[in-house]
Amino acid sequence: MKTVNIGLCGLGTVGGGVYAVLKRNAALISARAGSNILVSHVGTRSINPRCVTASTKISRDVVQISEDPDIHIVVELIGGTSAAFDLIMSAIRNGKHVVTANKALIAERGPEIFVEAEKYEVIVAFEAAVAGGIPIIKALREGLVANDIHWMAGIINGTSNFILSEMSSKKRKFQEVLEEAKEKGYAEADPSFDVDGTDAAQKLAILASIAFSIPLNTKSIFKEGIAHLQPRDIEYASELGYVVKHLGIARQKPTGIQLRVHPALVPASCLLSSVDNVLNAIMVDCDALGSTLFYGRGAGSEPTASSVIADIVDISRFVTTSNVSGTRPLGVKFADIKNKKILPIEQIETCYYLRFSMHDTPGALSKATSIMAEIGISIEAIIQKEQPLGIDYVDVIVITNSIMELHLSLAVRKIEQLETVQGDATVIRLERLDQV
Amino acid sequence: MKTVNIGLCGLGTVGGGVYAVLKRNAALISARAGSNILVSHVGTRSINPRCVTASTKISRDVVQISEDPDIHIVVELIGGTSAAFDLIMSAIRNGKHVVTANKALIAERGPEIFVEAEKYEVIVAFEAAVAGGIPIIKALREGLVANDIHWMAGIINGTSNFILSEMSSKKRKFQEVLEEAKEKGYAEADPSFDVDGTDAAQKLAILASIAFSIPLNTKSIFKEGIAHLQPRDIEYASELGYVVKHLGIARQKPTGIQLRVHPALVPASCLLSSVDNVLNAIMVDCDALGSTLFYGRGAGSEPTASSVIADIVDISRFVTTSNVSGTRPLGVKFADIKNKKILPIEQIETCYYLRFSMHDTPGALSKATSIMAEIGISIEAIIQKEQPLGIDYVDVIVITNSIMELHLSLAVRKIEQLETVQGDATVIRLERLDQV
Repeated sequence: MKTVNIGLCGLGTVGGGVYAVLKRNAALISARAGSNILVSHVGTRSINPRCVTASTKISRDVVQISEDPDIHIVVELIGGTSAAFDLIMSAIRNGKHVVTANKALIAERGPEIFVEAEKYEVIVAFEAAVAGGIPIIKALREGLVANDIHWMAGIINGTSNFILSEMSSKKRKFQEVLEEAKEKGYAEADPSFDVDGTDAAQKLAILASIAFSIPLNTKSIFKEGIAHLQPRDIEYASELGYVVKHLGIARQKPTGIQLRVHPALVPASCLLSSVDNVLNAIMVDCDALGSTLFYGRGAGSEPTASSVIADIVDISRFVTTSNVSGTRPLGVKFADIKNKKILPIEQIETCYYLRFSMHDTPGALSKATSIMAEIGISIEAIIQKEQPLGIDYVDVIVITNSIMELHLSLAVRKIEQLETVQGDATVIRLERLDQV
Repeated sequence: MKTVNIGLCGLGTVGGGVYAVLKRNAALISARAGSNILVSHVGTRSINPRCVTASTKISRDVVQISEDPDIHIVVELIGGTSAAFDLIMSAIRNGKHVVTANKALIAERGPEIFVEAEKYEVIVAFEAAVAGGIPIIKALREGLVANDIHWMAGIINGTSNFILSEMSSKKRKFQEVLEEAKEKGYAEADPSFDVDGTDAAQKLAILASIAFSIPLNTKSIFKEGIAHLQPRDIEYASELGYVVKHLGIARQKPTGIQLRVHPALVPASCLLSSVDNVLNAIMVDCDALGSTLFYGRGAGSEPTASSVIADIVDISRFVTTSNVSGTRPLGVKFADIKNKKILPIEQIETCYYLRFSMHDTPGALSKATSIMAEIGISIEAIIQKEQPLGIDYVDVIVITNSIMELHLSLAVRKIEQLETVQGDATVIRLERLDQV
């Protein structure tokens, strides 16, 4: 049985997980791979690195690994977009295949990397960059290869999902749950990329590029986080049969492609609404298969290692053959990646949840509904809450049918200008995600 | 761009779907595959077959397709285990790769086929044989390749799931829903293989063989259908927070492997419980990744075609190279498939739902619970229903903790012999399917 030599760069959370799983399941993995997967060179700054054997080469400078003539596959798990980029480019130019879990790097600098990989005829794999252990990139690129993909909607940030689950099930406030998430290690010390949607947008950029053969472009994605969500909106949504989730949505429409990351009401009958805590799930709707869903752990040491090793094994089948005939990083040749029109958020069409505070005088509600009717917004449901003791204003909640965001915004501005309405309205998008 | 020639044997529901999707998404599929996928030879008994072009060769005898020197991949969609077997063996011996959707054939005669395929160094792929369009075989063999799989539990028969969903949501009876399922085309004219568990057992045999590297053996699977289920048990289960589903379960334990297909109570909080109608879902629990779930359409023309085409595209990457280095049909070399101990159903350990009819006299319930206590069965929940007007007996429902089936059966026999108990007890297994 041939041996495939791995250069493991980074022995942190994910790197340590990769090492541990490769060791624990060595017999099983080599029987499936048809080769021995050997970590023969490790890159780490630690002086006494854990989990290496006496015969393992150790380098403090990871670039040495990319230049090691014995190494077949360089595994980049050092993170960041600078040293990691240099490492990967050096590996490619030395004819090595590359596996990475680095979503920021792929989303931001993927094009440079993929062009170089095509030139040097090596594979760059990044299953672990999106949704941790869920094999969603393999599913999109290979399992659903026959399909024209209509849309995807995913819970792809575990931190946000944990916070929303807690806010929903225990009626807690955002800031309070965020502190707990930090304590539990579900959120970074600086959690801004998780809660402002940046992390989800990077993952969505990768998924959309594969699904629609469009360039990787995080900047074209509309992005909204969860910090502004109020417990009472989550509660009202629940009364109306919806659950609030933070979704990454990519949707192909005749007018253009929607790419957006934001909180959304999801029907309680939809599987996605039952995905709680730090779990991830991606729903994909496509022409031949219909709706399908992939669910599992989206982060953590061994779940992420599971995807890193899956990539290693896939590549190991090509090592020692000169013919690299696997799937392309983005599903098609880089030249076949085409710019398509990305719709600005004002031009998307979806349903909306709308809450505003209104003085409960006769005719007040009808003025608001007239504004919506004039703009062509039809109302799916409307609730006027009871007036709390000692407060002059009542909450009015409206669920609209599908309408262009531009028109919804216009209606909201007009409603906010009514003299019976106090303060700003709260708007949350609502996705029906019709299943099959 | 090279052309890969497909011999499509069978133009029925699935064959027609494969033809339609290959035609509709031709540009998209060829960009992803890196080659043109051309159906150049069709096998059908129809005199004026639909959906073929003037240049397509047509044969009434499918074996001619397996002998056609231009054909790279033979797609077997004629069904049955006799002519289909001969076709596949002929294709292999003529050096063709094979794609099939035939679960009965793979489950029953897979070993003969795979040995021959190893000998002739061709690929035999069968993603469509299990769970229709869900890429579960790819996920098990490739996506989860790093993992030691602990257990799988799947809703893998759409007909049974439709019937149970209707019985549950509308309190209807089995026979009545079965008739509707036949009318809607969800069940065959002879639905016995669907409702008695045979279909699910064949699929489970394939999944378990891949997950645990054990021989394909449908006969070793414990099998129970849904025909005997009473609406009131589904209702009682619901009151207790459970949903009744027909599951295929494969579980690796230190004492041996459990392989079983039967109705089971599933916690309402578990994602599987929300999988309704004809949908399929498979939950896989493994060491590195934890619990993961794959959901989608398990049958139908285009969902099944989606998987057939995914197999075709995977294989197309190896056509025109001499090196077949893809995954093995069962995940490992055929020689690495090892017999492991399969536990008889009496030796499995799980939880149980138990219902019996009892004369409501003082001390009657305590006699029954004493029997269970003596045998070491601990009770998770117990309900004694109100006595219906004019009936002397009440329903008693017990949910047990995990216990060996042998012990449960002993307790049930003793309870049935109590003079306060009328008739036979109803026993349904209960699977907690603890998520992550």
